[in-house]
Amino acid sequence: MPYITVKMLEGRTEDQKKALVEKVTAAVSETTGAAEDKIVVFIEEMSKNHYGVAGKRLSDM
Amino acid sequence: MPYITVKMLEGRTEDQKKALVEKVTAAVSETTGAAEDKIVVFIEEMSKNHYGVAGKRLSDM
Amino acid sequence: MPYITVKMLEGRTEDQKKALVEKVTAAVSETTGAAEDKIVVFIEEMSKNHYGVAGKRLSDM
Amino acid sequence: MPYITVKMLEGRTEDQKKALVEKVTAAVSETTGAAEDKIVVFIEEMSKNHYGVAGKRLSDM
Amino acid sequence: MPYITVKMLEGRTEDQKKALVEKVTAAVSETTGAAEDKIVVFIEEMSKNHYGVAGKRLSDM
Amino acid sequence: MPYITVKMLEGRTEDQKKALVEKVTAAVSETTGAAEDKIVVFIEEMSKNHYGVAGKRLSDM
Repeated sequence: MPYITVKMLEGRTEDQKKALVEKVTAAVSETTGAAEDKIVVFIEEMSKNHYGVAGKRLSDM
Repeated sequence: MPYITVKMLEGRTEDQKKALVEKVTAAVSETTGAAEDKIVVFIEEMSKNHYGVAGKRLSDM
Repeated sequence: MPYITVKMLEGRTEDQKKALVEKVTAAVSETTGAAEDKIVVFIEEMSKNHYGVAGKRLSDM
Repeated sequence: MPYITVKMLEGRTEDQKKALVEKVTAAVSETTGAAEDKIVVFIEEMSKNHYGVAGKRLSDM
Repeated sequence: MPYITVKMLEGRTEDQKKALVEKVTAAVSETTGAAEDKIVVFIEEMSKNHYGVAGKRLSDM
Repeated sequence: MPYITVKMLEGRTEDQKKALVEKVTAAVSETTGAAEDKIVVFIEEMSKNHYGVAGKRLSDM
């Protein structure tokens, strides 16, 4: 606790995801006072055909 | 804003998903007053072995 | 199935939410072929101090 | 209703997932009074590179 | 890990929720092999005006 | 995009939540390359009677 879910388009590299988990954990710990070892991060990736803005999927743009 | 997530079994065609995003966006805009370009739709698909009703997975029926 | 979650700022009237559920259900049924009585809609409301864009909460703008 | 989501690392067998859906449904029915045929279970699997604790992904440990 | 979310209508007693967390945790541990102290349960309650089936909210039935 | 959800126990101050949104947004932008104005943060609070670890709710400890 806290539990953080980051939902984003697929395509980031492993290095980016590794840094993402590290930096988000640090930001949450610093601002909420939660210990780092209590913080959980989930990454959820979506594909362009499963994400739409303004009625249009990214895969159709 | 608003953010809509549609969770359904895998198997719909790209044309169905394209229409889904378009029509759901229109329905949300019409009823909430939100501008279409502020509306986000996520599609999440599940497989039959990850979905159970009444204690039984679809893949076991 | 399908299951639709609509996440939006609090403040819509009951009439708007009622119409939202009705119209979204119709849009999902029409485009996916799912029977209306299999479609579930969840509304999740958020307050302005729990929603941030570009690093700023709506309640701080 | 109720709707249960079980999020866990990938790797369980089909037999484990089948039993999971069955036993969780029974536990929810027994404790909430909901009829078993109204209970829905979703399984969501994550990979080790999309799950981090204490700022470190499982895939980096 | 695993993380279980139980989404249901508001109205259960504290005793029911207490038993729900206990029994669901046991069911998940038994079927997945996860240690009980690694299992997390979240309860999310919804009101009848935020839950619709077949295009109709429970509060409108 | 990306969309970040932070789920945590209620009780943080408005200043903590404000800083949380700001710092998490910066961390996600820095590590994923996404522009800050495309990043959305949702805060979800839970109460101690709706959160259990090892089969026990926090409100029962």
